[in-house]
Amino acid sequence: MAQPGRLFGIGVGPGDPELLTLKALRLLKAAPVVAYFVAKGKKGNAYGIVEAHLDDTQLHLPLVYPVTTEALEPPLSYEAVIADFYDTAAGVIAAHLQSGRDVAVICEGDPFFYGSYMYLHDRLAARFDTEVVPGVCSMLGGAAVLGAPLVYRNQSLAVLSGVLPEHELRRRLADADAAVVMKLGRNFDKVRRILDELGLAQRALYVERATMANQRIVPLAEVDPMASPYFSLLVVPGKKWQA
Amino acid sequence: MAQPGRLFGIGVGPGDPELLTLKALRLLKAAPVVAYFVAKGKKGNAYGIVEAHLDDTQLHLPLVYPVTTEALEPPLSYEAVIADFYDTAAGVIAAHLQSGRDVAVICEGDPFFYGSYMYLHDRLAARFDTEVVPGVCSMLGGAAVLGAPLVYRNQSLAVLSGVLPEHELRRRLADADAAVVMKLGRNFDKVRRILDELGLAQRALYVERATMANQRIVPLAEVDPMASPYFSLLVVPGKKWQA
Repeated sequence: MAQPGRLFGIGVGPGDPELLTLKALRLLKAAPVVAYFVAKGKKGNAYGIVEAHLDDTQLHLPLVYPVTTEALEPPLSYEAVIADFYDTAAGVIAAHLQSGRDVAVICEGDPFFYGSYMYLHDRLAARFDTEVVPGVCSMLGGAAVLGAPLVYRNQSLAVLSGVLPEHELRRRLADADAAVVMKLGRNFDKVRRILDELGLAQRALYVERATMANQRIVPLAEVDPMASPYFSLLVVPGKKWQA
Repeated sequence: MAQPGRLFGIGVGPGDPELLTLKALRLLKAAPVVAYFVAKGKKGNAYGIVEAHLDDTQLHLPLVYPVTTEALEPPLSYEAVIADFYDTAAGVIAAHLQSGRDVAVICEGDPFFYGSYMYLHDRLAARFDTEVVPGVCSMLGGAAVLGAPLVYRNQSLAVLSGVLPEHELRRRLADADAAVVMKLGRNFDKVRRILDELGLAQRALYVERATMANQRIVPLAEVDPMASPYFSLLVVPGKKWQA
């Protein structure tokens, strides 16, 4: 029997293809199988970031999400559908590993920072030799393009999802020295209202698709809440430390 | 008069030289002046990461901290001494920029994530054309080598400094879905006691100098609190989401 392949979870950074690390590039070029999550009918952001570095001798393996929304009609549940999907994807990857091929799973940003790779890792890391290559996460890509130093000295940072209930978001934002709110999209209006209430709107900065070719920085007050994409984020930088 | 140079704040990642990004490498090789913060008598971690990529035609400019501790004897205060130091360092860099030389300031991890570059940025960004290149931060380097998926789906992440007072650390750790505690060093014992009290010790993972050549992963219970270095961190991963 073949020596099993190795599983790599590879962060490819927030969007700018130049924010790939040297290690990610080396492992990607060497991997016989490069797998990536993608929405139906889309090319995939992570794939777009690394595509130019791959060649035809490598298997380009899309893992196509079965749904594009978490709001499904009963008796379907998002949790059940997506768990089945990750089981299937893990099975496909395990077959490659078992036949001796290394598999690189690419992830936008960092694999362990809200990455879908985590669900494959949890299913496969106990059975196969695994290595994770950290990447530049979207939060830090966002702070960089906004020119916003994020946390000084001993300040606490809260990383929050815009999906959280309003009372929880308000409580956590009120308690943070600095904060980043991800997954805005349809939650933008709620988040902006909370920032207004807390007097944080003046300090907050907003960016869509940070470091990508179609990046867009908009003053908070001018954001159209109906048009805020999923890949947008809000940064509330820590107060400047006057050293 | 010369066209002023550009100021670059460049994240060089958590320690492994291969975790440098392609963009950081390109800008570093092109910069006539490469500046880095360093303790007296030391080589500097950030400098060690990129040294092999620099050549003798570039000015290697150490910015040497005037103190190695925050506990100074009155009438000296750390805040005053360090503010003077950053003023002076900003002046040195401004002189290079004014004479038309680009200056790359390298930072371990990411420039805006607790990086000393922030203090130069706050002094110079209004006067000079500035660009920040985000890097892989130590927290994500740590999670990667620990094999610890950090935050799932809509979990909240708290990034905390071990320097915080005990009651504040306890409160913030108790409230977080997932947490990272940085700047352990002499604060290790306090942090471990809090994790024990909160029942989080089983979930917590510890690493020293993540991704560096002398990286060390130690079970929490076996860490010698007197020997925990500054570049150590604790990760409390979010509970696995059973998708």
